[in-house]
Amino acid sequence: MSTGIEALDVLAEQFARLPGIGRKSAQRLALAVLEYSEDDITSFTSAMQSAKEKIHRCPVCENLTDRELCPICADPDRDRSVLCVVEDARAVMAFERVRSFRGVYHVLHGLISPMNGITPDALTLRELLSRLSDGSVREVIVATGATTEGEATAMYIARLLTPLGVRVTRLAHGIPYGGELEYADEITLSRALEGRRSMD
Amino acid sequence: MSTGIEALDVLAEQFARLPGIGRKSAQRLALAVLEYSEDDITSFTSAMQSAKEKIHRCPVCENLTDRELCPICADPDRDRSVLCVVEDARAVMAFERVRSFRGVYHVLHGLISPMNGITPDALTLRELLSRLSDGSVREVIVATGATTEGEATAMYIARLLTPLGVRVTRLAHGIPYGGELEYADEITLSRALEGRRSMD
Repeated sequence: MSTGIEALDVLAEQFARLPGIGRKSAQRLALAVLEYSEDDITSFTSAMQSAKEKIHRCPVCENLTDRELCPICADPDRDRSVLCVVEDARAVMAFERVRSFRGVYHVLHGLISPMNGITPDALTLRELLSRLSDGSVREVIVATGATTEGEATAMYIARLLTPLGVRVTRLAHGIPYGGELEYADEITLSRALEGRRSMD
Repeated sequence: MSTGIEALDVLAEQFARLPGIGRKSAQRLALAVLEYSEDDITSFTSAMQSAKEKIHRCPVCENLTDRELCPICADPDRDRSVLCVVEDARAVMAFERVRSFRGVYHVLHGLISPMNGITPDALTLRELLSRLSDGSVREVIVATGATTEGEATAMYIARLLTPLGVRVTRLAHGIPYGGELEYADEITLSRALEGRRSMD
C-alpha cells in the first residue's frame, strides 16, 4: 500500500500503529493531515505532546489524571470501602457514565495474557495489595471484561485477595439488556442460568 | 463524551476532526497515544510535520509529490496525449494500482459542491485549461466518482472543454452508484476505464 511518496507513507504508518486503524484508513488520515494548515498541524502535535506531558497515573487508584489526585479519589463523598478493579481508564469512564457506582476504582492497566507476554507483574497488583493493607476496604468488585483474559485476571485477583479476608465479588454475567434469548451464545446462556436470582 | 481530563479531551478532539473518526474512536486513539514513549510521540509529530513540509503539488498535474515533478509526470513512457481528470490523490493511487492506464493525470483537489460552498474556482480548472492550450492532449477522461457531485463536476468539465475541440470521455457506468473511487475493486475500475464514452 505504498503511495510512492515517502513522507506520506511514513505518516500513514504512524496512523496504522493506532488501534483499529487499517492500512487504507491510515492512508486516508495521512492525506487528510496534508490538507491541514501549519497551525492545524501545530495544534495536533502540541495536543499530543501536552497530553503525554500532563497526564499521569493517580497515585492512589492508578487512573489517568492531569491533577495531583484524580477527581474520584479527591472526592470526599466517594465510598472508599468499596473498590472496583478495572482493566483501564476507559472502563472507569464507562462506569462513571452510568453514575450508579459510588465507590472508588483501581486501574490495572492491562489484563494477564501469557500469549502476549503480559504477566501479573505488568499490572498494578502490588499497588492494589498496598491499598488493602490498612483493612479499610470491605469489598473488591473485580470488573474486568467477560473475555478469556478478563476471566483469567479476575480468577488470579480473587486467589490473591481472598486470603486477606476481604470480600471479592465479580460483575454479574448474563443476557444483556434488550438481548433476545435466541441470539444469546451458549456460554452467556449457561451463565445467565447459573446466576439466576429469586424474583421476590 | 468529556473524560474530565482536559489534555486528553483536547487530543481526542484533534483525532475526531479527521475523516471517519467518531467521538468514541477519537477517545480510544488519544488513550493509545498516552501509552506511547516520548520517542514514539516524537516520531508521530515529526512524521506529521515532515509530510506537511515535504509534500506539495506537482506543478504539471497537481498530484501530491515530494519531488520536483511527480513520478508519473517525470516518466517519459507515459502517454501525454491522454489526460485523466480525477478528484484527488487517492483516485490517482487507485488507478495506478490497476496499471492499465498509461496516460497522465490532472488532479482537481475537490468536486464542485454548491451545498458545501465549493465552486469551480476552488478546483484546478485553470491549470487544466492551460495544459490543453498547446493542443497536444487528444483526449480528456473525466474520472470523477459516480456521485451527485462527481457527475456535476464531470458535466461542468465537459461543457468547459468540448468547445476546445478536445475529445472528452467519461468512465463507463461500471462503478456502482454512490461508490467512492478508492473503494472500487480493480476489475470494476479497469472495466469502467475500457468502457468510457464520449460526452458530446
